[in-house]
Amino acid sequence: MPKQIRVCLVGAGRAGQVHANTLVHHLPEGVLAALVDSAPDSLRAAGEKIGVEACYSSLEEALECAAFDAVVITSPTYTHKDLAVLAAQHGKHVLCEKPMALTLAECDVMIAACERAGVTLQIGFMRRFDPEFEAGWARVEAGEIGRPMLIKSLTHGPGLPPPWARDLRTSIGMLAEVNSHDWDTVRWFAGADPERVYAEVANFKGAAHGVNTPNFYDTALVQVRFDNGALGCISGVCPCEYGYDARVEIVGERGILQIGDLRGQAVLICKNRDQGIITPIYRTWPERFAGAYIAELRHFLECIRTGARPRATGTDGRWAVAGVLAATRSFLERRPVAMREVLEAPVAIGR
Amino acid sequence: MPKQIRVCLVGAGRAGQVHANTLVHHLPEGVLAALVDSAPDSLRAAGEKIGVEACYSSLEEALECAAFDAVVITSPTYTHKDLAVLAAQHGKHVLCEKPMALTLAECDVMIAACERAGVTLQIGFMRRFDPEFEAGWARVEAGEIGRPMLIKSLTHGPGLPPPWARDLRTSIGMLAEVNSHDWDTVRWFAGADPERVYAEVANFKGAAHGVNTPNFYDTALVQVRFDNGALGCISGVCPCEYGYDARVEIVGERGILQIGDLRGQAVLICKNRDQGIITPIYRTWPERFAGAYIAELRHFLECIRTGARPRATGTDGRWAVAGVLAATRSFLERRPVAMREVLEAPVAIGR
Amino acid sequence: MPKQIRVCLVGAGRAGQVHANTLVHHLPEGVLAALVDSAPDSLRAAGEKIGVEACYSSLEEALECAAFDAVVITSPTYTHKDLAVLAAQHGKHVLCEKPMALTLAECDVMIAACERAGVTLQIGFMRRFDPEFEAGWARVEAGEIGRPMLIKSLTHGPGLPPPWARDLRTSIGMLAEVNSHDWDTVRWFAGADPERVYAEVANFKGAAHGVNTPNFYDTALVQVRFDNGALGCISGVCPCEYGYDARVEIVGERGILQIGDLRGQAVLICKNRDQGIITPIYRTWPERFAGAYIAELRHFLECIRTGARPRATGTDGRWAVAGVLAATRSFLERRPVAMREVLEAPVAIGR
Amino acid sequence: MPKQIRVCLVGAGRAGQVHANTLVHHLPEGVLAALVDSAPDSLRAAGEKIGVEACYSSLEEALECAAFDAVVITSPTYTHKDLAVLAAQHGKHVLCEKPMALTLAECDVMIAACERAGVTLQIGFMRRFDPEFEAGWARVEAGEIGRPMLIKSLTHGPGLPPPWARDLRTSIGMLAEVNSHDWDTVRWFAGADPERVYAEVANFKGAAHGVNTPNFYDTALVQVRFDNGALGCISGVCPCEYGYDARVEIVGERGILQIGDLRGQAVLICKNRDQGIITPIYRTWPERFAGAYIAELRHFLECIRTGARPRATGTDGRWAVAGVLAATRSFLERRPVAMREVLEAPVAIGR
Repeated sequence: MPKQIRVCLVGAGRAGQVHANTLVHHLPEGVLAALVDSAPDSLRAAGEKIGVEACYSSLEEALECAAFDAVVITSPTYTHKDLAVLAAQHGKHVLCEKPMALTLAECDVMIAACERAGVTLQIGFMRRFDPEFEAGWARVEAGEIGRPMLIKSLTHGPGLPPPWARDLRTSIGMLAEVNSHDWDTVRWFAGADPERVYAEVANFKGAAHGVNTPNFYDTALVQVRFDNGALGCISGVCPCEYGYDARVEIVGERGILQIGDLRGQAVLICKNRDQGIITPIYRTWPERFAGAYIAELRHFLECIRTGARPRATGTDGRWAVAGVLAATRSFLERRPVAMREVLEAPVAIGR
Repeated sequence: MPKQIRVCLVGAGRAGQVHANTLVHHLPEGVLAALVDSAPDSLRAAGEKIGVEACYSSLEEALECAAFDAVVITSPTYTHKDLAVLAAQHGKHVLCEKPMALTLAECDVMIAACERAGVTLQIGFMRRFDPEFEAGWARVEAGEIGRPMLIKSLTHGPGLPPPWARDLRTSIGMLAEVNSHDWDTVRWFAGADPERVYAEVANFKGAAHGVNTPNFYDTALVQVRFDNGALGCISGVCPCEYGYDARVEIVGERGILQIGDLRGQAVLICKNRDQGIITPIYRTWPERFAGAYIAELRHFLECIRTGARPRATGTDGRWAVAGVLAATRSFLERRPVAMREVLEAPVAIGR
Repeated sequence: MPKQIRVCLVGAGRAGQVHANTLVHHLPEGVLAALVDSAPDSLRAAGEKIGVEACYSSLEEALECAAFDAVVITSPTYTHKDLAVLAAQHGKHVLCEKPMALTLAECDVMIAACERAGVTLQIGFMRRFDPEFEAGWARVEAGEIGRPMLIKSLTHGPGLPPPWARDLRTSIGMLAEVNSHDWDTVRWFAGADPERVYAEVANFKGAAHGVNTPNFYDTALVQVRFDNGALGCISGVCPCEYGYDARVEIVGERGILQIGDLRGQAVLICKNRDQGIITPIYRTWPERFAGAYIAELRHFLECIRTGARPRATGTDGRWAVAGVLAATRSFLERRPVAMREVLEAPVAIGR
Repeated sequence: MPKQIRVCLVGAGRAGQVHANTLVHHLPEGVLAALVDSAPDSLRAAGEKIGVEACYSSLEEALECAAFDAVVITSPTYTHKDLAVLAAQHGKHVLCEKPMALTLAECDVMIAACERAGVTLQIGFMRRFDPEFEAGWARVEAGEIGRPMLIKSLTHGPGLPPPWARDLRTSIGMLAEVNSHDWDTVRWFAGADPERVYAEVANFKGAAHGVNTPNFYDTALVQVRFDNGALGCISGVCPCEYGYDARVEIVGERGILQIGDLRGQAVLICKNRDQGIITPIYRTWPERFAGAYIAELRHFLECIRTGARPRATGTDGRWAVAGVLAATRSFLERRPVAMREVLEAPVAIGR
C-alpha cells in the first residue's frame, strides 16, 4: 500500500465530521492528521467523537505543530479564501467545500495561490461523484438524449441553515449555501456557461422561525440561459421540512433523463389502506450522498498522488459563485441579469 | 348505433352492483333490463340505488316478466350451475362470475347447456381485460421474455369474505373465492395445463374474527407444475387488511416481466421525513380493476353480437375449479396432488 | 334514465375525435347529434370512422338542420370566439377546448355571450378531471402539505403542432397550445392569481423540421409569481419525441406532493441487463388523459342538466390566456412582465 | 486507531476478490495479510490484481509463513469444513462463505471446533448487513406489520454457476449456491425454524448450456412451513440472464413489507416512446450488495475485537444447509419432507 496522505481538516461542524468519518473509517489511503476549529467547545467535542488528538484552534497553529499534506476546508464561506491561500502558501493541497467563496475576486485569489504553489485545488461538488450523477452524465456525454435543451436541478433541504449562512454579510445566501450544487450541475450538463439569469425568491417561513435577516428567503426559483441556447432551472427550498431532496431532470433533443429519487431506500410498507404505501425518504444530505462524499475524498487523494486535475476545479467553483451573484442581483433588482454584468465588474453582495 | 343488448343481472351484491353500474353509466351498447336477487331487502336497496325498476326475486320470474338477451350471474357460487342452465335453456347468453361452480361436474353441465343452446358462455376473469395484463400477455406471446419458466400470481384482499364463501359446503373456499383469477392467470401465461399441485394453508386470523368454519384458512401458498415444465406459484391472503393487491411476475428463459403494482395512483406525498413518502394503494378490487370490468362486459356484448368466442371460456373456468379442488385435497392430505386425480374422478369438496 | 343530451361537435380533428368517441362509446347520457368541420375530406372521413351521419360544413348549417342542446368546440383557436358566441345566441351550452381564445377581449365576449344566454360555458381543462389531479388537489385543499410555495407543472408533447398552432397570427403559440393546462394547474394549486411572469424560450429543432415561422420555439421555461407570494414554474417542450409527459410537483410549507408519472402502465420488463428495466411511457395525450376526457364531458352534461357551475369556467380559461400573453411579451422583450400590463391594456399578439 | 486485524483470505475467486477489495480499499481497521488459493494461476493473477505479496497455495502454508488473526473462507463448499477446523485449531477467527458446508455433520464439526478454540465463527449471510434488509427487519421487529404470515424471498442470478457448484458431489446444488441467502432470510423474518419443506425444480436451459450433470436444475420453487405457522416461499433461477435479482416480500397480520428492488440506480431515461422508459438493473451480486459486503466484514472485525456474537452464526448457517437438504430430498422424492427427517438422521446428498 502506498504511503497514506495526511489530511488536516478545518471546521469541526457537520460537513467536517462527514469528511473526518470518511478519513477514519472508509479511506485506508488517507489519515486524519489534524483537526482545526476556532470554537474550543466544538473542537473538543468533535475531536473526542472522531478520536483524533491533534486538535488546533487555527490552521496557523496546525501548520506549526502537525505534519500533513493536504487541507480540507469546511468552515464558513467567509473564511475560505484566507484558509486556502494560507494552505497553498505552505504547499498543502486544498479541498474546499462549496460555496467556494464570497466573491469572484476571492475565487481568483484562491485559484492563483494554488496554481502558484503547484497544489491541487478541488471544490466540494460531491454530486459529481455520486454513482447516479456519474451514470447520468455518462449517458448524456454518450449522446443518448441528444443535446440538452432543458436542465432542471433542485435542492430542498430539511432544516434552517445557521445564521451566518443566511446573512448576506457572511455568506452569499441560500442560493449558494443550498443550491451551489445545482449551479454546478446545470452548467455541467448544459456543457456551456451561463449567459443570463433570472430569479424570484419568497420568504414563507422566516417569521415563524424568528428570522429577521434582511432579504431572507426560503424559496428560490432561478432560470439560467446558457450560451449554447440551453435553458436551466434551479429551485431551492430550505427549510423544506419533508426531507433532503436533490434531483435532476434533463430534456435533450432526443429524450429525457432523470437522476435521483425522493425515495431513500428500496423498502416499502403498507399497514393501512387509507394511509397508503410508505417508503423511506432521504432524511439528510450526508445520508443521500454518503457514497459520494467517500468517492470525492478518494478522488482528491488520488489527484494529489497522481497530479491529475480534479473533477471539480476552482473554475467550476467560481462559476457557481458567479451564478449566485447574478441571481441575487436579479431578485433584488427584479430583472434578468446578464452574466457579463457580474463577470466584468465583480460584485460583493451585502457589502 | 346498433340495437342495445338487454341484460338481466342476477345477484344484487357487490359484484352485481359493479356490473350494474357499468351497464347504466359506461356501456351505451347495453341496457340493464332486469335485476334479480332472492333477498328482498338487498333487491329493493340495489334497485333504488341503481335506478332500475324491473326487479325480481328469481331468474324464473324475470324470464317470465321481462325481455332480455343475456344474463350476468353474480350470485353465490352454489347457485351458478342451475342459473346458467336455466338461462341457456331460455336462449340467454351467460356471463358467469368466478368461481364457475363447485365441482367439475357442474362445470360440465353448464358448458354443455350453453353449447346445446348455442349461446355464449363467458367466465368473469376480468383480469384478462385489464390493460396491464393485456400488455403483459402481448409481450409474452411475442416471445419477449422467452418461454415462461416461473409464474407467480397473487391476490391479497382486504376484508373477510362472507360466511357462505368460506364454508366448504357452499363454496370451495378462499382458494376459489379469492384466488380464482390467479389460477386462470398462471395457466394463461404458462400456456399449458396444470399437472401437479401442492398447497399449504394457515389460519392466523380466524379466531380474532370469530370464524369457526372447519378448515378455515386466511393464508394460502400453492405450487403448480404445468405439463410443459413451467412452475406456478399462487398466494392468497384474505383478510390482509392493507389493501387490494393483485400482481403477477413471470420469469422466462430470456427475461422477467411484472404486471401490476401495489401503488394505486401516481400521486406521491411526503410531509414528514420520519414517516417517509406516501402513495395511495388500491383499496378494493372494484377500484383496481375498474376499467377491466367495463372492458369485460363490453367484450361479452360484442361476442353476443358477433358470435365470437369469448376470451375467457367455460373451459378456462373449469380449469380454475380443478386447480382449487386439487389444491384443497393437497393441503387436507399434506401431499402433492396430481391433476388427473381430480380430473378423472371429479371430487366434490365438503360433501 | 333521463333524456340524453344531444351534442354537436365542431372540429373533426384529433381532439374532436376523442370527444366523439367518448359520446358514442362511453356516455350513455349523451348522444353525438351532429358533426361539423369546414374541411370536407376531414368531415367525411371522421363521420365514417365515428359512424355519425349528421355531418355539416359549418355550425350555422348544423343549427339549421339538426337538433341539439350543446356544442363542443375543438376547432383551431382563432375560430373559438365566433363559434361560442353563435352557439350561445342559439341557446346552446358550450364546452370550448383550450386555449380559450386569442385575446382577453375575445374571452370577454365569449363569457358575456354565454352569461346573457344563460348557457353553461366550460373550458377544456380536462386535467382537472384526472383522478390523480383530483386526489392531489384534495390533499392540498385539506392542508396536507400546508400553503403551496412552489408549483411546477410541465407538458412535453411528442409531435410538432400543426402550422396554425405555431403561427402567432392564428394561435398564441406553443405556450398556449401545449401549456394551457399548466397555466391552469399552477393557478389552481397556488390558489391565487398570477402577478408577474418571466419566460425564456429556445428553438432547437425548428430548422430540422423545416419550420420558419417567426419567433418559433420548441422549448419554453416560465416563472410565475402569484399574488400570495407562491412561485410557479411551467415548462414546455414540443416536439419532445420521447412521449407525452405531464407532471406536477408542489412544495408546500409542510411537505411535497407529486402528481403524475412518466410511466404509462404498471408493466415492467427486463430482457438484458446491459439495457436495463423497461416500462411503458405514455405515448400520447389521449392515452394519458383517457379517463379525464370522459369525466370532463360527463361533468359538462351534468352541469347542463343541473345548472351547476362547471369546474373549469370561462374565467379560468381567460387567466390561462392572460398568462400566455404576458409570457410571450416577456420572452420577446426579455424582461419580467407584470400581469396588470396585460390585463389593463389587453394585447393581441402577432397582430 | 486500534491495531489492525490481519486477515488471511482463502479462495482467490470472485467472492474472494470482493473481500480482498474490501480489506484493501474500504476497511482501515483490517489488513489483508495473506492470500491462499490452490490454483497457482488464479493465485498469481489475483495477488497481482489486489496487490498482495503474501500468496500461498494452502492454508497450512500460510499458517506457517504468515502472521494473521482471522481467516475468510471463500473456496468451494466442499473445502469449508477442513479449512474452518484447521483455522480454529490455530486460534484463528473464521468468516465462512455460504453455503456453510455439505452436511449437517460438517456444520456441527465446524461449530464445535470454533467453540472449543474460543474463536468467532461468522457465516457469510451478507444480506443481513444490507441497509434495506436491516431497515426491513427493524420494522418487522418493531411489530409494524404484525406477525409475519407469508414470507417470499427470491434470488435470480445472471450466469451459470461453475461446474463444482452444480454437481451434487461437490456442492449441494443451486438451492444452496444461489438460494442460501433466501433460506436464511425466510427463517430470519419468520422468527421460527422450518418444520416442513416442499420443492419443485425444472431444467429449462441445461441442454442449451451443455450441462449434463444429473439432477441439474435452473429453476426452483420451494415452500417452507415454519413451526409458528408462517409460510415461506423461495425461488431460484440461475442463469436468469436478465440481471441479479434479490427481493423479499413479507405479509404480516397487519401489513405488507417489501425489501429490495429490481432497479439498480435512480437513473431513468426515455429516448423512444415505443421502447419506453429505461432504468438500470442490478447486473451482479457484488454490485447489488456492495455496501453489505463491506458492512459484513467490518462487523466480523468488530466481533473479533469485542468478542460479540456475530449477527450470522454457525447455527444460522446450519439451518440453511438443513433446508437445502430437505428441499433436495423433496424434489427427488416428489413429496413434502419434514425437517426432522433431515435433522434427526443427517443426510449427505450425492454420496
